[in-house]
Order: sequence, then structure tokens, then C-alpha cells
Amino acid sequence: MYVGIVVGSVVATRKSDDLVGHKLLIVQKMKPNGEKLDDLEVSVDSVGAGVGEHVLVTTGEPAKYVFGTSEISIDSAIVGIIDSMEYSE
Amino acid sequence: MYVGIVVGSVVATRKSDDLVGHKLLIVQKMKPNGEKLDDLEVSVDSVGAGVGEHVLVTTGEPAKYVFGTSEISIDSAIVGIIDSMEYSE
Amino acid sequence: MYVGIVVGSVVATRKSDDLVGHKLLIVQKMKPNGEKLDDLEVSVDSVGAGVGEHVLVTTGEPAKYVFGTSEISIDSAIVGIIDSMEYSE
Amino acid sequence: MYVGIVVGSVVATRKSDDLVGHKLLIVQKMKPNGEKLDDLEVSVDSVGAGVGEHVLVTTGEPAKYVFGTSEISIDSAIVGIIDSMEYSE
Amino acid sequence: MYVGIVVGSVVATRKSDDLVGHKLLIVQKMKPNGEKLDDLEVSVDSVGAGVGEHVLVTTGEPAKYVFGTSEISIDSAIVGIIDSMEYSE
Repeated sequence: MYVGIVVGSVVATRKSDDLVGHKLLIVQKMKPNGEKLDDLEVSVDSVGAGVGEHVLVTTGEPAKYVFGTSEISIDSAIVGIIDSMEYSE
Repeated sequence: MYVGIVVGSVVATRKSDDLVGHKLLIVQKMKPNGEKLDDLEVSVDSVGAGVGEHVLVTTGEPAKYVFGTSEISIDSAIVGIIDSMEYSE
Repeated sequence: MYVGIVVGSVVATRKSDDLVGHKLLIVQKMKPNGEKLDDLEVSVDSVGAGVGEHVLVTTGEPAKYVFGTSEISIDSAIVGIIDSMEYSE
Repeated sequence: MYVGIVVGSVVATRKSDDLVGHKLLIVQKMKPNGEKLDDLEVSVDSVGAGVGEHVLVTTGEPAKYVFGTSEISIDSAIVGIIDSMEYSE
Repeated sequence: MYVGIVVGSVVATRKSDDLVGHKLLIVQKMKPNGEKLDDLEVSVDSVGAGVGEHVLVTTGEPAKYVFGTSEISIDSAIVGIIDSMEYSE
């Protein structure tokens, strides 16, 4: 999993059936010290995240299980909203 | 998932049986602000996408489910056509 | 799998049900000679690891099985605490 | 999937049982315009590809299904031989 | 799969049950021409490989099947010992 910040959202009317009803958010990877990294991806929200929030993102095959099924074409899910981090370099 | 732009297509007569009948498109990764990145891959269309369109791409194991089966040798699928994006750096 | 050092932890009150009760640690990838690399991720502990320890991390789909199930939205797990490494460049 | 060119082959007498009888080819990733990239990997042939041919490669979990089973330790398969590509930068 | 050279090993007494009895080797990725690359990972041996040998490594979900099960927290396996490679740049 990685730590990211929600920086936007995507609207797609024509899409796979299994994406219907899901919120597609743009997440930018960040370091625990707050520094934003270049990596951006579209992740499906599962916890009610909004723009500006620090989130925990699961990618790949395991991301599907947040949605209660193994048969869904989702490869990235926001699985938590981060309250705090402790980190020493 | 990532945001990309369809920049071309691939023709392969000799191919795996499970690819027959599928449209193989070349997708270039882009940032939400429209800047094209270096990453290019071949993705299988599932939504009727065409050259020049901004698309949403799912990769890896989850990409298979757009095609209604878990037993297919496809590791990247176009799962949506993007209408709009909101994004603040 | 990769070798890393535990450098911190993450607290997330609002999170996916299958993450409840798991310790979310921040792991920094390192070379066997001790040099820290730039890669950081959040990994779920399964062996009682703590900050400063050198750990072995499994990522992707296989990480789920440390937790005795295939239906969990975890893509990275600490699967061992490293006692020693032999390494010649 | 990615586009590559077959640049060599690997011989391994001592190997996993499920690799026996499979042709192990070295594939170099390329851009659609023919420019070779640095990435090289060993991919298992499924379409009768040979050195110098442009091929389509599937990686990760989906690569297994070209061989008609989900229980095989293959993470990369050549799934097509490319006849032509259309591509505009 | 990738070509690598075994450069070391890892000892971990406290570890996931499914790793017990497996040899954990450090593998450095290399080009077919022998040039070592920066990438290093810990891979589980399945063919009796030793330090200095050139090996073939499978990563991700497919790596599990070398060990005869889909329910094991292993994401990288040495699946062959390389006798020779033919390669032209």
C-alpha cells in the first residue's frame, strides 16, 4: 500500500459495468513527510474520501476485495483515510 | 488505473485464441493536465474507444473481468472513456 | 520479496473492514549492505515487527496468504524479521 | 501488454517441471516507432515466435492462461506476432 | 521472468509459517550479456541454486505454483538454473 493525497476526480459516462456507481479519484503518491511524488493514478474510493485528504491505497489484485468480489475490473482502491503518521528518516 | 490517450493500434494475425476478436490499442499514459508521459502499452478495448480519446485503463489481473472471465491472457483493458477531469496540483 | 527497514507507522480510523486490527507499518527498501533506497510503502505486519528492524516484505497477490485468506485488500505484508544476510557484490 | 522484439533465447536444463517443453525467449521492449528500450525479460513463447520478430507480450498473472492452466509458474508470455502497427505521436 | 545472479542469502528465524524450510536467496538482475543491474530482490529457491549461479526468476502471483500451492506468501521464485543464453543486441 502507499500513502497518497486525493487531488482530483474523473468522470466517465461510457465505462465498464462494474465501475458504475463508484467514485473515481485521482491520487498523488506522497512521502510520509508530506512531499508529493510524481506518481498519479486513478483509484476507486471505498471509504468516503475527498479532495485534499491523505489516504491509504491498495493496488493490484487485492484491491478488488474492498468491493466484496473477486470479479471486478478495479486495480486500485482507497482503503483508508489517514489520521496520522509517525516517521523517522 | 491510469489516464491515457489512444495513439494507435496493433494488428496481429498469429495470436493467442483468447485475443481473437479483440481490438488492440496503443495507449500513452498522460497526466490529468494533458501532458503526455513516456509510458506506452497495448491495451484491449472494452468500451469502443478510438484514436485521440482519453481513456481509463485497468492493468494486471483485474483487467480480465471486463471480458467476463478470469481465464484470459489479457493484462490491460480500456475500461472507460473519460468525459472530464477535475485536478488541482 | 525485498529487504526493508521499518521506519514508521500509519494510523487510519476510517478504513476497510479487513484492515481492522492490523498494524500498518511504513517500510523503506534497503540494499543488503544497509544502504537505504528511496522506495517507501505501507506494509501490514504479520510477525510482530517494530521500528528499526530489518524485515522481509512480500508484495502483491501473495501477500494476502499470510493472513489466512485470499479475500483481503492487502497488497504488502511483512513476512519475516531478518537476523542476518550474507551478500557479496 | 507491451510490444517487443525477440533478441535471444535461454537454455536451462535444471528448471521447474512446469517450464519443461516451453521455449524461453529473451524479449526487448520497443516503442511502436521501432526504437528499442532498455527493458529486457524472458518470456515463454506460445505462438511460434523467432529471433527478430516483433511480438506482443502479456505479463503477470494473466500470462498463465495462454497455456490453458492457472497453476503454472510463468509470469510472461508471447501471445502474438505483430504484423503491423499504426501509431502517431 | 528475468535473468539474475545469486549474490547472497537471508536468514530469518521469525517468519511466516509458509516460508519455513525454504531457502531465501538474494538475486541481482543482470542483462544477458552479463552486466549486473541495480535491482536486487529476495527470491525463494526451488531448484537447488547457489551463490554465483545464473538463474531464471518468476515474480508475482505465478511464483507460488513452483511450490505446489496457490496459498503461500511467496512473490518471487527461482525456477531455473541457466546453462547458456544466446543474445544479440
